[in-house]
Amino acid sequence: MQAGPFPGRGEDEWVAALAGRLAPTGVPGLGIGHDCAAVDLQGAAAVVSTDVLVDGVHFRLAECGGRAAAGKALRVNLSDLAAAAAEPVAWFLGLVLPSGAPQALREELLAGLEEVARTYGVPCAGGDTNVAHGPLTLAVTVLGRPGPLGVVRRSGARVGDVLSVTGPLGGSLGGRHLLAEPRLREALALARLGVPHAMMDLSDGLSRDLPRLCQASGVGARVDARAVPVHDDAVRAATTGRSPLEHALDDGEDFELLVAHAELDPATRARLEEAGVRLTPIGRVVAQTQGIRLADARGSVPLAPRGFDHLAPAEPSAGARGPSA
Amino acid sequence: MQAGPFPGRGEDEWVAALAGRLAPTGVPGLGIGHDCAAVDLQGAAAVVSTDVLVDGVHFRLAECGGRAAAGKALRVNLSDLAAAAAEPVAWFLGLVLPSGAPQALREELLAGLEEVARTYGVPCAGGDTNVAHGPLTLAVTVLGRPGPLGVVRRSGARVGDVLSVTGPLGGSLGGRHLLAEPRLREALALARLGVPHAMMDLSDGLSRDLPRLCQASGVGARVDARAVPVHDDAVRAATTGRSPLEHALDDGEDFELLVAHAELDPATRARLEEAGVRLTPIGRVVAQTQGIRLADARGSVPLAPRGFDHLAPAEPSAGARGPSA
Repeated sequence: MQAGPFPGRGEDEWVAALAGRLAPTGVPGLGIGHDCAAVDLQGAAAVVSTDVLVDGVHFRLAECGGRAAAGKALRVNLSDLAAAAAEPVAWFLGLVLPSGAPQALREELLAGLEEVARTYGVPCAGGDTNVAHGPLTLAVTVLGRPGPLGVVRRSGARVGDVLSVTGPLGGSLGGRHLLAEPRLREALALARLGVPHAMMDLSDGLSRDLPRLCQASGVGARVDARAVPVHDDAVRAATTGRSPLEHALDDGEDFELLVAHAELDPATRARLEEAGVRLTPIGRVVAQTQGIRLADARGSVPLAPRGFDHLAPAEPSAGARGPSA
Repeated sequence: MQAGPFPGRGEDEWVAALAGRLAPTGVPGLGIGHDCAAVDLQGAAAVVSTDVLVDGVHFRLAECGGRAAAGKALRVNLSDLAAAAAEPVAWFLGLVLPSGAPQALREELLAGLEEVARTYGVPCAGGDTNVAHGPLTLAVTVLGRPGPLGVVRRSGARVGDVLSVTGPLGGSLGGRHLLAEPRLREALALARLGVPHAMMDLSDGLSRDLPRLCQASGVGARVDARAVPVHDDAVRAATTGRSPLEHALDDGEDFELLVAHAELDPATRARLEEAGVRLTPIGRVVAQTQGIRLADARGSVPLAPRGFDHLAPAEPSAGARGPSA
């Protein structure tokens, strides 16, 4: 016997705790503790996101604690479903606990996952827990079904579309990234109104993510530097030498949606407002030959990707950029 | 520019390489490089398995290389789908590369995944790649649809059922575990003939896994020690002081199926033989009150779980066990 929230210390007890806490309402056909989970999608298509978060890369466990770390792992995956305007149905947890971690860490992780799962109403349907000599690692997979517009992709942007974002950008690494709010409600409201031609969530920064949407759609883009909504956190972060705009363009981990859509008619605009969805236009989709450019009153410059690339070596600081620098 | 199989060194190039090599035939509605994958299941239910494999726990990268390690990560998840007699449709890769790992490791991983994906005809539909200071970690999720019997579970065993396994057990950690053959073909053949009442794959060892099936089904079991098929590898491993039978009962990582089923009629037996499926009876399902026991000509003893528990502290060696020891 031992103290703590777990009746025993073995794998089966942990799985039972997960099942009791993370899938409390029960999902039809679901069974934690079997080799597989069966999930009833009530339809023919599955939408899936999988993201792996590691201590030291996506969070710093010693600073943020297990609750925030685990919460983020679920939040960022739900954000990917929001990007597709899909409805999450269930999620799966692949967990690597650092060997020697205190028992309390498991409780923190469980509490963080439970909080986010309840907030967004999505039950855990299974997973796998391991212990290893290494950093805390959370591999979350979310399974969903297409929303009212089907699966919204990055590839539907059309020349002439407006490019909008669902909220202010930049400076999230000061702490906001841990509490990213997946824009599920906003995405489904947009989809119900038939708004998005293409959509993605801004996880690696507008300057890296926008080119991905453009490439997928075979288009270019012109971003109005003066229109990009800059988060207060980006202003605070700008004491380090880069401008607030640069933080807004490059920082990543905002988890706001980038939406390509036709000019909104007044009725749609009113219904979005009723639904509490705020779209801020930041530019236009242009022909691919015109490239991806950042413009202000003085002219335009290419918008080069400077967001986070997980596989690239660290780049030397490239100094100030853009017409607004 | 750099040498090696990748046109660049960034995330987007790696994702393109994954897409080209691991999803070569294309899956309808699938899009690597989007926030989510959409998978057409042609039916209403999804069957999902997720397993995380870590260097030093599930394989030793320095000894086995990236190809075998990555192959195992996919094999063990496909084995979970076999346990449910489900048909895999697509899989997802969550990868954590050790920082500073040579470029060649990525190619080895890709080759290992490609080989297994082709063998079992299941395309990759998405994933997430990261670099961190830690061991190589592969989080694989396989998505499938129910087979001809629906989702076969651990919970359907009935008193009087025969307990059978699909192959010999023990000693797989000598190397066989890296090349585990998911019993997908066997599982679907069994399901088509309506054979399994309950099924699971033997990943943690019969002595740990059988009690899970019994608990899920609310039954007990009596295993005939003389009937358990012992793998040659278990005989080789038995030089370390534990008997071949103990290796067969406790080692785990066999990935053979444990099946609870009614006595086979001659026609079913013949059709299984035609399909190349060999079921070896090892015992019977009994009432829960009779417990889970291991029997031979001299009597019986409780079959205590001694397979691998990922969350338990290392146990002291418990010496020889059972009537046959």
